[in-house]
Amino acid sequence: MTVSPAAERAPRARFRPLAVPQVELRGFWGARADAVAGRTAAILYERCVEAGMLDQIDPDRPSPGVRIPFHVSDGFTASTVTTQMFWDSDLGKTIETAAYALNRRRDPELEARIDAVIDMYGKLQQPDGYLSSWYQRIQPGLRWTNLRDCHELYCAGHLIEGAVAYFHATGKRKLLDIMSRYADHVGSMFGPQPGKRKGYCGHEEIELALVKLSRATGEQRYMDLAKYFIDQRGQAPHYFDEEARARGADPRDFHFKTYEYNQSHKPVREQDKVVGHAVRAMYLYSGMADVATEYGDDTLRLALDRLWDDLNAKRLYVTGGLGPSADNEGFTADYDLPNETAYAETCAAVGLVFWASRMLGMGPNARYADTMELALYNGSISGLSLDGSLFFYENPLASRGGHNRWKWHRCPCCPPNIGRLVASIGSYMYGLADDALAVHLYGDSTARFSLGGSEISLTQTTHYPWDGGIDINIDADAPNRFTLHLRIPGWSQAAALSVNGEKLDLAAVVRDGYAAIEREWRPGDRVRLALDMAIERLYAHPQVREDVGRIALRRGPVIYCAEATDNAASLNSLRVPRQVQFEARFEPGLLQGVVTLSADVEAETAQDWNGALYRTQGPQAGAASLKAVPYFAWDNREPGEMLVWLRGQ
Amino acid sequence: MTVSPAAERAPRARFRPLAVPQVELRGFWGARADAVAGRTAAILYERCVEAGMLDQIDPDRPSPGVRIPFHVSDGFTASTVTTQMFWDSDLGKTIETAAYALNRRRDPELEARIDAVIDMYGKLQQPDGYLSSWYQRIQPGLRWTNLRDCHELYCAGHLIEGAVAYFHATGKRKLLDIMSRYADHVGSMFGPQPGKRKGYCGHEEIELALVKLSRATGEQRYMDLAKYFIDQRGQAPHYFDEEARARGADPRDFHFKTYEYNQSHKPVREQDKVVGHAVRAMYLYSGMADVATEYGDDTLRLALDRLWDDLNAKRLYVTGGLGPSADNEGFTADYDLPNETAYAETCAAVGLVFWASRMLGMGPNARYADTMELALYNGSISGLSLDGSLFFYENPLASRGGHNRWKWHRCPCCPPNIGRLVASIGSYMYGLADDALAVHLYGDSTARFSLGGSEISLTQTTHYPWDGGIDINIDADAPNRFTLHLRIPGWSQAAALSVNGEKLDLAAVVRDGYAAIEREWRPGDRVRLALDMAIERLYAHPQVREDVGRIALRRGPVIYCAEATDNAASLNSLRVPRQVQFEARFEPGLLQGVVTLSADVEAETAQDWNGALYRTQGPQAGAASLKAVPYFAWDNREPGEMLVWLRGQ
Repeated sequence: MTVSPAAERAPRARFRPLAVPQVELRGFWGARADAVAGRTAAILYERCVEAGMLDQIDPDRPSPGVRIPFHVSDGFTASTVTTQMFWDSDLGKTIETAAYALNRRRDPELEARIDAVIDMYGKLQQPDGYLSSWYQRIQPGLRWTNLRDCHELYCAGHLIEGAVAYFHATGKRKLLDIMSRYADHVGSMFGPQPGKRKGYCGHEEIELALVKLSRATGEQRYMDLAKYFIDQRGQAPHYFDEEARARGADPRDFHFKTYEYNQSHKPVREQDKVVGHAVRAMYLYSGMADVATEYGDDTLRLALDRLWDDLNAKRLYVTGGLGPSADNEGFTADYDLPNETAYAETCAAVGLVFWASRMLGMGPNARYADTMELALYNGSISGLSLDGSLFFYENPLASRGGHNRWKWHRCPCCPPNIGRLVASIGSYMYGLADDALAVHLYGDSTARFSLGGSEISLTQTTHYPWDGGIDINIDADAPNRFTLHLRIPGWSQAAALSVNGEKLDLAAVVRDGYAAIEREWRPGDRVRLALDMAIERLYAHPQVREDVGRIALRRGPVIYCAEATDNAASLNSLRVPRQVQFEARFEPGLLQGVVTLSADVEAETAQDWNGALYRTQGPQAGAASLKAVPYFAWDNREPGEMLVWLRGQ
Repeated sequence: MTVSPAAERAPRARFRPLAVPQVELRGFWGARADAVAGRTAAILYERCVEAGMLDQIDPDRPSPGVRIPFHVSDGFTASTVTTQMFWDSDLGKTIETAAYALNRRRDPELEARIDAVIDMYGKLQQPDGYLSSWYQRIQPGLRWTNLRDCHELYCAGHLIEGAVAYFHATGKRKLLDIMSRYADHVGSMFGPQPGKRKGYCGHEEIELALVKLSRATGEQRYMDLAKYFIDQRGQAPHYFDEEARARGADPRDFHFKTYEYNQSHKPVREQDKVVGHAVRAMYLYSGMADVATEYGDDTLRLALDRLWDDLNAKRLYVTGGLGPSADNEGFTADYDLPNETAYAETCAAVGLVFWASRMLGMGPNARYADTMELALYNGSISGLSLDGSLFFYENPLASRGGHNRWKWHRCPCCPPNIGRLVASIGSYMYGLADDALAVHLYGDSTARFSLGGSEISLTQTTHYPWDGGIDINIDADAPNRFTLHLRIPGWSQAAALSVNGEKLDLAAVVRDGYAAIEREWRPGDRVRLALDMAIERLYAHPQVREDVGRIALRRGPVIYCAEATDNAASLNSLRVPRQVQFEARFEPGLLQGVVTLSADVEAETAQDWNGALYRTQGPQAGAASLKAVPYFAWDNREPGEMLVWLRGQ
């Protein structure tokens, strides 16, 4: 997990993700995708309806008007019944999740419901293409007056992503056409041309969505508009200042005080610290990476690598979670990574997967893929219960037992975000270039794609992430020369690679953490990769004050935690001595089948304290057992204490 | 600091505090009292005026009406300019502080200002005796409709305390008479008699104030009213329920959800856990202890000892601070003592001094006096800057450098509370019974009192708390038989006691942590007490998760902390090995003269991390120096990190 200096890169390549239907998942991700397809997708739709979202978007119903949000934290209450300016985005992500779910499992009832929502948007759309349920139905007359705070283009972005996914899943163009018209309207309002607004959204999202729209429709103008929004961000005079004055407000009267909050404090190419609202940051950098890839823009790439280093060196939880503070839902000071109060929003870790995957568009490089895998297996999927029905918004690394999964949230951004990520994970596993395929993630699955005019299927057979052995079979209709890039994860202390039984010299073929095998691939070729999955103790940089004197446990890509239900002693009374060996064991009946880690450790005892709170003698310690489970699976059993950073040396 | 079971007690005695003017302070407390008399007292008055309090109380000015409070934390801003329902209490405490200051140092200007405030209250008082600037000037017509939330009797209590102190300091009866009339009005409204209200205040305070008023005026009816408020608290039917219904509100619509918040969840004699708002709890228990003393009420004493044990065993910071949570300004779960986010309001530690001192009314017992001294030297006076001009509201035990002293606070309860405590500390040093004097606290000073018909002066000559040697000289106009109780602090590993050079066998004379010397005292008698002040490492109970693997340093009554300005390395990178010896050194030029503690320790280095945030190898450690200063004196120099619980074994 050390950060290597940006390595010299091969001549420019563009690796694009496979579309979701191209990858058939089995094993670990198959089970997670089944939970989303079988449960989450329908739940998202139903909770959007319960929250009243359809009342807001359906022009045939009376407008619900503004309702005051009241936040309570007992799972599902009246608190969710409030109109929200970002509801179009939640519906967009719900449509997107449903689309990926339909890829996995036909579901005519769900499809009919989504079609009905799309019909409402079709009716709602203005003749000029404009489409916002908030500004058309709740606050009419105010469109384009407050991009800083009101999520107007952000909502458009999520509906665009939903439209693209639904088109790929069902072949139905209706929402894609609606959103293309809206994108054209946006393009008529914003851009470098005289007379157009020089603005961009306070919550980034439309940038990456327009790249998707461009790729799906083949229309370059959407790509150019994405690039415009990125290039324009943070330029002087500052758009949010001018916009505030135009609506009669004082620009200084901004709740979050600094434009770092939405990453518009300076032009993006000058940015070098990851700041502000974490999800916004991740979405911006994702869009920047897409544009860097598509335009071969090294000035963006340079800024992205600076930002990547800053995030990975100073502000990333060991779980791949990010954004420690609830105040700005985002970043604070260097090395400020509190565990119990970690905000570490599910959406932010999902956003990091987005960003990392897009950095891989510029070529395979394990520094991006390792972090993508970390965020994926830990800090993001921790946000979804194993059965697909309950959610985390915050993902702390320690809990006294009171942090539990929710049915829903007043700001329901996380449930559909983790839903769409899990259901589309196949598209993050591979990158396809003109003459190469990169395997970024391992997992039991089959991918089908075209390369050099051939139809190829690549099958991974593996128990990953519980076992480091991966068998890859390549089938094609004809022999075909291309480079297969196989990631050698940074966490693996040893790896062995063979093609058709013949061992490869890894040192000779690995570059940027990927083994590059260039050859003429023939039907039936077999690749075998064996990754060492030793149990590792991780130590945090001494400036991370909350982790001093503590260790985290990692095995393969999986970060572990202790939960009260598996441990007799209170978790902070446990100490892991330096010489202790952990034992890994696959438990098929536990948490849908996980590898657990166990060891004999020490526990400080409270027995001889006799009512004292402080004393001059240190605590006595006795023998105890410690059992750890994967962090992503925590709080799927009875509520209780949880701890990632264990006391130890 | 261990909690001993409640020891069997001597036959009932009533030890009452000396009045403030009876004790002349020098040394440590003399300097602190000078800061309050010379600076704080005037500052309190001026900031009350700046906040607009006189506009609220002066009937000759237009009513300022309700103004919206807006909280900002930059020291002194418009945030303080808002009307508040508890302003009478702040003026009461300001008057009280000024009174004690006038004892120390005549100040005709300050006295004239206080006289003018008293004149305003005189004009404001209704013919029936009622007096509340809030309910008379800001919300007329609503008196006695919401005792639960609106501090009505609490305000009366603080004005009564101010009146008693001002009477003792100046001999002027005007405010004492005003408040006696008001107390009579309160007594006509509340009480067990038919037709009177069965209520009590949501914020306890009037109970202990009425005891003071009774002692000052000799009127038993005020004592009885105090007892009534205590006896009635938490009885069914619940007054706050009935009161809410009477004003047309739903009793369940209570912001703090549970009556534990104001300790009215059950009758006081049934309470066994210290719960709710910390200051309220301390004030209630103080009143209970006064009533237990005055009425010899063992049923109250039993409840108080249970509560005392609960506080000392499960919810007291090592500094004597208390109430970890900002949410309820109070108590949470057992052993929940977070350091950086500790609320530990200055007023709560001051309140604990009040409570502990009143437990001593029932007889000398070091279990109360040790905690009183702890809270006094650490968690309470930390709330006042050394020069008497700046304040802490919260007193965390760790800071990253951003927690700094304030000029004022929107809810300005703490500044006058710590002011009045420091300026009246002499009265906490001694307890006087019919045939005994107890010395609870040591400090360079002279006390003058009457006992058995003689006028006695007792002079302590000492550098306490920096040195454990105390010379006590007793002067009287005639020989006089009484018992002198001298506290042997629990923190002292060894003590030696002699009278006129003759050594006493401590084991034979110590009971409940006090040496009892009964003899005929003659003019010129000399007592010498030598207390060991070894530097101690304190460990917290293993259930205090924030303190595991950490130590606190104590020398005598003083708890230490490390500050950035004295230490080169970041404080959490420092580790104190088990065998390390600390050195104590008096530094006369530092922080007005303090003993510092120094040692050679280890510091983990960040030098070889090369940009990594996590790695599989533990941090390297090198040699470093650690210097600690008294916790109470922190943040009196340049802002920076602070840490009480150091990493160590």
